[in-house]
Amino acid sequence: MSNHLVIMAGGIGSRFWPMSTPERPKQFIDVLGCGRTLLQLTLDRFGDICPPERVWVVTSAKYADIVAQQLPQVPADHILQEPCRRNTAPCIAYVSWRIKKQEPKANIIVAPSDHVIMNTTEFQRVVRSALAFTAETDSIVTLGMHPTRPETGYGYIQGDLSEPCARNREIFRVDAFHEKPDLTKAERYIKRKDFFWNSGLFVFRVSTIVNALRIYAPEIANIFESLIPYYGTPEEQEQINLHFPECPNISIDYSVMERAEEIYVFPSDFGWSDLGTWGSLHEQSQRDQYDNACIGEHIELHETRNCIIHATEERRVVIQGLDGFIVAEKDDALLICPRSQEQLIRQFVEGK
Amino acid sequence: MSNHLVIMAGGIGSRFWPMSTPERPKQFIDVLGCGRTLLQLTLDRFGDICPPERVWVVTSAKYADIVAQQLPQVPADHILQEPCRRNTAPCIAYVSWRIKKQEPKANIIVAPSDHVIMNTTEFQRVVRSALAFTAETDSIVTLGMHPTRPETGYGYIQGDLSEPCARNREIFRVDAFHEKPDLTKAERYIKRKDFFWNSGLFVFRVSTIVNALRIYAPEIANIFESLIPYYGTPEEQEQINLHFPECPNISIDYSVMERAEEIYVFPSDFGWSDLGTWGSLHEQSQRDQYDNACIGEHIELHETRNCIIHATEERRVVIQGLDGFIVAEKDDALLICPRSQEQLIRQFVEGK
Repeated sequence: MSNHLVIMAGGIGSRFWPMSTPERPKQFIDVLGCGRTLLQLTLDRFGDICPPERVWVVTSAKYADIVAQQLPQVPADHILQEPCRRNTAPCIAYVSWRIKKQEPKANIIVAPSDHVIMNTTEFQRVVRSALAFTAETDSIVTLGMHPTRPETGYGYIQGDLSEPCARNREIFRVDAFHEKPDLTKAERYIKRKDFFWNSGLFVFRVSTIVNALRIYAPEIANIFESLIPYYGTPEEQEQINLHFPECPNISIDYSVMERAEEIYVFPSDFGWSDLGTWGSLHEQSQRDQYDNACIGEHIELHETRNCIIHATEERRVVIQGLDGFIVAEKDDALLICPRSQEQLIRQFVEGK
Repeated sequence: MSNHLVIMAGGIGSRFWPMSTPERPKQFIDVLGCGRTLLQLTLDRFGDICPPERVWVVTSAKYADIVAQQLPQVPADHILQEPCRRNTAPCIAYVSWRIKKQEPKANIIVAPSDHVIMNTTEFQRVVRSALAFTAETDSIVTLGMHPTRPETGYGYIQGDLSEPCARNREIFRVDAFHEKPDLTKAERYIKRKDFFWNSGLFVFRVSTIVNALRIYAPEIANIFESLIPYYGTPEEQEQINLHFPECPNISIDYSVMERAEEIYVFPSDFGWSDLGTWGSLHEQSQRDQYDNACIGEHIELHETRNCIIHATEERRVVIQGLDGFIVAEKDDALLICPRSQEQLIRQFVEGK
C-alpha cells in the first residue's frame, strides 16, 4: 500500500482580485509573504508522508507551466491538465483512474492547494493516522475541523460521536453534510459538539473512490473508465481534452460524500483556514500593532488601522488615515474595498 | 512694442505626488483629463496675444525635452534651462536679460505653467488691457484675483482703491503685499474690498523689470548683465550653468514687487486657480453626482463620495465605500490620503 498525494490546483481565486488574477490565482502566489506560494506550502507540509514521485497535481491546462515551475520535484506527467472547469468530482475522478492504472493499491490524500495550515506536526499526525485507517478499510475519511466561530463561508460535517471506530478511536461515522449555513444556523452549529468544518481534505484508497464514483456518479465514472487505455500514453491529453468537457459540473461532496456509505470524519485541530476570504487572510497574516496586515516591500502606513494591504514588490504605497479596508494592487488593477464588504469583490471581477 | 510671453515651468509639484513626480511634475500632466497638459493649456489660453516665436519657457534643464515635446511650436532656443532651482527672481531675471538683448522694447507677460483659468475670453481681455498699460508706462502690473473664500494658501495684494489710474480705470496702485495668512487673517482679508489673491501673473516692459532688478536685486542683476555677450550664442548654456547657481534663492515678489515703486494691481475675475492643492484640483475638475473627480479611463466607483481619483490610463481601479479621499497612482507609487489631510503629502514625498 503506497501513499499518494493529490493536490487540486485549478481554482481561479476570484474573491482575491486583483491580488489573485485569472492569469495567476491565489494558490500560485505568496499571499502570506513568507517566501513560498500556497501551492508550495501545500506540498511542503506533507513532509515525508509522500515522496515527490507519488505526488499528483490536477490543474487547468493554462496553469500547468506555473505548477511545473513552482513544484519542479513533481514528475511532469503527474501534472494533470483539465481543459475546462468542472468542479471537484471530475477532477478527483480523473486523477483516481489515472493513479489506479499505475498503482491499483494506492492510498490517497486529496488536498486543496490554496488553504493554510499552521500546525504541521499535528497535521501530519492526523494524515498518517487517517491513511493507516483507509489502508485497512473501504472507507472515505474527511478531515473535520473543530469550529472556532459561526463561519458562514464553510460547509459543516455532522459526526455521530456516540461511538468511535474500533480501528481508530479518533474517527467517527458521518451523520450528515450541511451546506454553508446562514448566521443563525451557524451559531446553532457551533454550540453543538458534533459539527465540524469541512476542510476539503479527503483520504481514501483509490479502489474505494473509484467504486463510489461508479455507484454514485456513473456518468463521470464511465468517461474515465473508457479512457483507461490512454492513461500514461502520449494520447492521454488529447483524449482528456475531448471527453473531460462531457463531465457534469459537480462537486465531490455533492456527488459522493453526501450519498455514499462508509463516510467518516476525523475531527481535528491543526490551525486550518481555507483562506477563502480577505478576513481569513488577515487573520492568518502577521499584523502590526494597529492590526494591519501588509504584504509588500514598500508599504508605509500612517494613522491606519485594521487594513489588509497587498502590493507588488516594486510598488511604493503610502496610506494615511484608512480604517478597515482592503487595498490590493497588481499589474494594471487596483482595488480599495471595506473589509466588511469583501463579498462584493467577486461581482466587481465578474462584472468587468 | 512687441508682446512676449514668459512661461515659468520649473516647479516640481511635490504636493501632487504620485500623480506629479520629480520626473514629470504637474505642469506636464493632463491633470484635468481634458487631453492637454497644464503647460499646453497655459500657452493655448493666450490665443493670438503672442505668436509662438515670441514665447519663452524657463524650466529646469531636466524638463527641457518635455517642454520641447509638449510645445513644438516654441523655438528650441526659447526654452531656457536653469541648472538648479533658485525661485522666481533669478528665473525672471535670466529670461528678461535674454529677451532684452534681442528685443529691448519687449512688453512681457509672465505666467506660471501649472495654474488653471476657466474664462479665457475675460483673461485675454485683461491681459491685453494690462499690456497696453505697461506699453505706455514704466509700471509693473500684477493681476489680482477677487477672492471667493478665506484661502490660506495664497498671498494677497492690497490695492489702493481710492483712485484708479488715469490711463486705465481698472488698474490701481498697490498698497502692500501680504504673505499667506492664517485663517483668522484670511477671513478678515476677504471681508474687505481691497484685498486680492496674488495670481503670479505679471505684466511689464523688459526695460522696467531690468531696471527694477538693478535697483532691488543688484546681486542678481550683475550676474545676468555680465552674461550679455553670451545670450543667443552657443556658449549661453555653459555660462548659465556656471553662474546661475550663484544667484540667491529668492522670489520676484519678495525681491522686487514688495519693494519697487510703480507697482499696480489689476483686480480681475477669470476663474483662476493655482491648482496648488488637491482641494482646488477637485474644485476645478468635472465631478460626478456624488462629487467624485476621476481622472483615468477605467475607474469604477461604488458607494463612493467626495473623492479625487487619479490613475494612469491603462489601470483598472475599483473602489467601494470610500468617502473624502485622494487616491492617486502612477508608475510604482500609490497614495491613499484623506482630502482633509493633504498637507501631509509633501512630508511623505520628502521623507522617502
